[in-house]
Amino acid sequence: MRTTVSLNGVIGAKVKRVDAEPKVTGKAKFAADLYFDKMVHCYLVLARKPHGILKGIDVNEALKIPGVVGIYTHEDIPGKNQLGEVIKDMPCLVPVGEKVRYYGDVVAVVAAETLEVAKEAAERVKLDIEELPAVLDINEALKDEIKVHEPTNVPIHKKIRKGELKKGFAESEHIFEGEFYAHYQEQAYLEPQGVIVTPDIDYGYTVYGTMQCPYYVQKSVAHVLKLPLNRIRVIQTETGGGFGGKEDVPSFVASYAAVVAYNTGRPAKLIYDRETDIQTTSKRHPIKSYYRIGVDKYGKLKAMEIRAYMDMGAYATLSPIVMFRTLVHAAGSYEIPNVKVDVYGVYTNKIPPGAFRGFGSPQVLFAVESMMDEISMKLDIDPIDFRLLNTLRKGSRTATNHLLTESVGAVATLENAREISNWKQLNREVDEFNRIHTDRKRGIGVSHIFYGVSLGAAGQHLDASGAHVQINADGTVDVRIGGTEMGQGAKTVIAMIAAEELGQLVEKINVHQPDTAFVPDSGPTVASRTTVYSGNATRLAAITLRERLLKLFCELTGASSEDVFWGDGKYVDRTSGTEMSFEELIEQAFMRNVKLNETGWYETPKLEWDAERGIGEAYVTYSFATQIVVVEVDLYTGQVEVVKAFTSHDVGKALNPEGVIGQIQGGFIQGMGYALYEDLKMKTGQIITDNFNTYIIPTIHEIPEELVVDIVEDPFPQGPYGAKGIGEPSLMPTPAAVANAISRAIGKRVLRIPATPEYILKLIKED
Amino acid sequence: MRTTVSLNGVIGAKVKRVDAEPKVTGKAKFAADLYFDKMVHCYLVLARKPHGILKGIDVNEALKIPGVVGIYTHEDIPGKNQLGEVIKDMPCLVPVGEKVRYYGDVVAVVAAETLEVAKEAAERVKLDIEELPAVLDINEALKDEIKVHEPTNVPIHKKIRKGELKKGFAESEHIFEGEFYAHYQEQAYLEPQGVIVTPDIDYGYTVYGTMQCPYYVQKSVAHVLKLPLNRIRVIQTETGGGFGGKEDVPSFVASYAAVVAYNTGRPAKLIYDRETDIQTTSKRHPIKSYYRIGVDKYGKLKAMEIRAYMDMGAYATLSPIVMFRTLVHAAGSYEIPNVKVDVYGVYTNKIPPGAFRGFGSPQVLFAVESMMDEISMKLDIDPIDFRLLNTLRKGSRTATNHLLTESVGAVATLENAREISNWKQLNREVDEFNRIHTDRKRGIGVSHIFYGVSLGAAGQHLDASGAHVQINADGTVDVRIGGTEMGQGAKTVIAMIAAEELGQLVEKINVHQPDTAFVPDSGPTVASRTTVYSGNATRLAAITLRERLLKLFCELTGASSEDVFWGDGKYVDRTSGTEMSFEELIEQAFMRNVKLNETGWYETPKLEWDAERGIGEAYVTYSFATQIVVVEVDLYTGQVEVVKAFTSHDVGKALNPEGVIGQIQGGFIQGMGYALYEDLKMKTGQIITDNFNTYIIPTIHEIPEELVVDIVEDPFPQGPYGAKGIGEPSLMPTPAAVANAISRAIGKRVLRIPATPEYILKLIKED
Repeated sequence: MRTTVSLNGVIGAKVKRVDAEPKVTGKAKFAADLYFDKMVHCYLVLARKPHGILKGIDVNEALKIPGVVGIYTHEDIPGKNQLGEVIKDMPCLVPVGEKVRYYGDVVAVVAAETLEVAKEAAERVKLDIEELPAVLDINEALKDEIKVHEPTNVPIHKKIRKGELKKGFAESEHIFEGEFYAHYQEQAYLEPQGVIVTPDIDYGYTVYGTMQCPYYVQKSVAHVLKLPLNRIRVIQTETGGGFGGKEDVPSFVASYAAVVAYNTGRPAKLIYDRETDIQTTSKRHPIKSYYRIGVDKYGKLKAMEIRAYMDMGAYATLSPIVMFRTLVHAAGSYEIPNVKVDVYGVYTNKIPPGAFRGFGSPQVLFAVESMMDEISMKLDIDPIDFRLLNTLRKGSRTATNHLLTESVGAVATLENAREISNWKQLNREVDEFNRIHTDRKRGIGVSHIFYGVSLGAAGQHLDASGAHVQINADGTVDVRIGGTEMGQGAKTVIAMIAAEELGQLVEKINVHQPDTAFVPDSGPTVASRTTVYSGNATRLAAITLRERLLKLFCELTGASSEDVFWGDGKYVDRTSGTEMSFEELIEQAFMRNVKLNETGWYETPKLEWDAERGIGEAYVTYSFATQIVVVEVDLYTGQVEVVKAFTSHDVGKALNPEGVIGQIQGGFIQGMGYALYEDLKMKTGQIITDNFNTYIIPTIHEIPEELVVDIVEDPFPQGPYGAKGIGEPSLMPTPAAVANAISRAIGKRVLRIPATPEYILKLIKED
Repeated sequence: MRTTVSLNGVIGAKVKRVDAEPKVTGKAKFAADLYFDKMVHCYLVLARKPHGILKGIDVNEALKIPGVVGIYTHEDIPGKNQLGEVIKDMPCLVPVGEKVRYYGDVVAVVAAETLEVAKEAAERVKLDIEELPAVLDINEALKDEIKVHEPTNVPIHKKIRKGELKKGFAESEHIFEGEFYAHYQEQAYLEPQGVIVTPDIDYGYTVYGTMQCPYYVQKSVAHVLKLPLNRIRVIQTETGGGFGGKEDVPSFVASYAAVVAYNTGRPAKLIYDRETDIQTTSKRHPIKSYYRIGVDKYGKLKAMEIRAYMDMGAYATLSPIVMFRTLVHAAGSYEIPNVKVDVYGVYTNKIPPGAFRGFGSPQVLFAVESMMDEISMKLDIDPIDFRLLNTLRKGSRTATNHLLTESVGAVATLENAREISNWKQLNREVDEFNRIHTDRKRGIGVSHIFYGVSLGAAGQHLDASGAHVQINADGTVDVRIGGTEMGQGAKTVIAMIAAEELGQLVEKINVHQPDTAFVPDSGPTVASRTTVYSGNATRLAAITLRERLLKLFCELTGASSEDVFWGDGKYVDRTSGTEMSFEELIEQAFMRNVKLNETGWYETPKLEWDAERGIGEAYVTYSFATQIVVVEVDLYTGQVEVVKAFTSHDVGKALNPEGVIGQIQGGFIQGMGYALYEDLKMKTGQIITDNFNTYIIPTIHEIPEELVVDIVEDPFPQGPYGAKGIGEPSLMPTPAAVANAISRAIGKRVLRIPATPEYILKLIKED
């Protein structure tokens, strides 16, 4: 179902990933690999209490250790002692006299000549903390008896009010209810957080580090150091995974290191060990949700009422923004005339969760898709048919009343998934398996999701991106974008777009590490927006350059521009057959002083949004997906094996199909981990599963033998060549599909993820 | 005579030099101040013979020294073993079996853990050189008996053929002849050559160093390492003076260091000590010139015949380009109907001279202005009147037959110099002085010059420049240009242009160190072109941004764009009085996703040029200057003191008048050093005045008590706000003015510079 065509054959083709070689051979330089002259090593001093008043910090003994350069506290911050953007509730370093609100609160930063000394000194810093009772649970927090922050533990509430809920339920033949809980998930990126902040030759500071959002880091460091933005430069180093965990957190990490660089005048390196990383950095939010759904006698959805409570931990960080996505996605990919959604953000004395692939939506998609599965079972309708009956189509209105006029591949993914799974045969096979086996049971789970691409109505002011494209005298090309590569393949797709538009070969295009100095604030690299936003910006810059080269080619050869082919590293007059290599053409351009760099800028289409009622154009476009999963449950151990999976995604247009498939495979595995294995455990606010020996993520052994990925292309006219986002939708259907498959296998509804063996055994044993 | 007006008062105003504070306080980081982790220190192994065959290199003993990392020779160069662009006659590292052509030829580079070890090891490398007889003098070289290069020592000849020389001389009433010699001059920048080449996070190499021309360095390193240009990035560090000495030479320095970085995989630092610098880097070319001039009975110039021989040393380097300027400027700032000029480049076994402020013109301007002085004396015409009679005016044609239609301030500078010197009174004073004194005599020297701005007809393909302007969310501005700051004030004038066009305050604008990654090849920072070329590029980018801000301001305030004032960090509706600070306006622009970066590009107006006859538009425009100098000569010691100087320059428009005056003061002093003190001495090709204890440059004590600088503004319509170049014209009139003043004081014609006491005494003693 590929619909749009590349002019010169790069877009949609199979290309070598541009960053494969350095990453495979070990040449790639991650933050930890960088060393600067006279660099100090930093280590954090954490509060290590869930709630209390910081009475004093005793650094005397720590300072005596040879090799300690300094220990920096709130008193050493030249600018604002404040991190986080939306709600200003979080200090950089907890001041004496103020509250400690969770175990991982940072009180001081030690700088030393070696990491070992820094760590030892951090352990010797003595904190005097007067403990307070701690709030460690959503329900406890909702009572508002012990307050994490004044005046309330529930400072944020977002809502949708569409249609008339009462009328909707009155018109319903059946009403279904359910209560769900989705737990924390750790991003589990390969590379932990890390930065180096160094005084630079432009009389400011340059920050190198692993991150998704260089512009956030730039602002945070400027804020903490009280310096103008043109004295802070941020360069992303190769980044070993982000998944949202490097959205806002690197701003904090960089701010701690910046305080050290400022006070020592030396480069300051702060690389988290895995324990510090898990203990102090964001996770997926735990969400408790309550669903009530009305369906008419034909199976059509009439009304949906949802309440969801998010555990924001000790500080709001990104939660208010995450909640917007929870809100918009809570009702699923369905047309429902009457919708009421309430999402609440709740403070507790725990780790502050934040961004994670799906950004507040997988938790409620698990819930709503569990409800859909339950309803289709109760009504005895085929789960795909039931979704086809209710899903969004061209002309539908979403839960926020957004009229969809284009690029709605929901139906196509449902039909495609049914086809690639050989649906009827698959059902027969599972029935046959279950007929034969008594100790193990198989189940088929379906889920169907939608995903609002990019930042949406709540983030429009950040939703634009830039690119800088420069052609060198030898015909090689430099591209810089405001978005970051964190493993998702951004560099490759951007190189392909530049190649497509310029006519140069992909291997002659170097997409450099992002650097705030080249491109204006391009927003964060989140929300599956990089291909669309950085891609469009690159495309626009490259087109301007191409037009200039085309004009020159026509002048030199006498060709008419409409007859010229560009691609494969050359320009060809199709009429006469005259051709010039890209290098020859650039040589001529240089001789003639042709301008060979351009900046591109793509700004989001404007969205109408009523924040009070939660009504309007929530996102510029939506991606869709349908997934079918077969699991096998061992009824005696509660262990689940994912046997087969079929997944179909509407990506608008797959610019780099190999990359898209890779994203979907990765997202599936991560979603499977969330559904089955990843069980974060705490003890009075301290995370006790603080490394991968206790926090279990899927390995190559858990990948199903049959994982069939297919792509549906319903082009998004504003996307480059029709593309929409894929980064997050790749994960989003999986928790629900797995949970539904288990529910069908064991005949009990899974109401909580991760569905660990313990939980499944408990379910099985329930009457 | 200031003619053009700034819209918001920045252009033409007195501002604080933007790089003053870090340079005065020592914060500025020069190449030598930079240290990189695991960096090796390099030292060069020189041939130390003027001419011979390199038979072998023995590194065994040197390698045994503890701390030596490696010693790299021609065999370790992955790419081309070739430096220099115009004529490919120069190796990077002299290969075994090939010729050594001068004392400073580089044979190997030592890398060691410390500089001391590197130097010691370099001294222990043993070279086996079979010596050949050396050519150490222009006249000797012209015989072509011993050849520096095959097939001839005189490979380059440039010429002008205007009018009919024979007829011109036939029509002349008087014919004058003269033979002149101008010696080497060392650029004597404060900071010696130095670079660090380091493997970078983009899988290539970044070069940091003191330089004028980052794009030359980039190409040279790419060439030597055989890497595409998008893997080589060059960042200019703060540069302590260039004066042409850092035009091509840093490409060589960087190439030596790059060979080390490539072979060691470590950052390689190569900082020249002063002796290495003087011994191996370019100088002003020695030029021997022969003049024959015909004048009619009214004193009008009718014919001029010139032959000039430039000592190119062992390699052509930039000489072919320098010769173009020698050619065009040899006949001076005069209208002459019949002109014949021949300039020859001659190889010798000596240091290859290259670029130096004035670029081949001060040598011949000294000669032609000495001739003008001699003629005016012989004809008993006031030297200013004589020049007024013959100088270029609007409607004149230059020696290359270039019709001048605009911005010809020659007459204005003559009249202005006469006025500021109080010419008649000055002459009376000197006469009076000479009447009283017998042991000391004073003389007044006049000189009058023109200067072709930028690269001219021979360098059109390099004559374009770019800029990158980016506004941050806090209203601070980042500017990057392709031109470099080397002390001349480029950063300040560029910041002023950005401030003028954007309306932001100068102190909010950060003009960063140049970096090849931001701006396409912008040509070299030479030829007094930066204000015009980088300035125009900055201006164009800033205007695009300003138009966007103006539109937004009008949308927000309801103002009409023609009523809006921008400047002093704000936008004001002059009608309503409504104003917004620049910061407020930028905040609004960010909220609306307005694109806030732009690239600017300025390409040279195209020039018609007939290289065969030396006829046509040699340069885009010309700067003019007139200088009057009073010297006092001690007849017994031959020592000369410059007592007073008056200098008037047509700069088109002084964007930063303080900066222009500073340039002129500096140029005057450097010109005075050339005229009087700086006497490079050699012994069989080895420079024996290889530090400032033996090579004497002027100090603060030699600056005349009265140095009056005035500016004439005849705007160049293509220049930003009318500006033309001043970097080089500041020096150019001085050698001639000083020489003429001495000639008049002692009654003998100075035919050679520097006019050292020894030379003056010899002149006085001649009968």
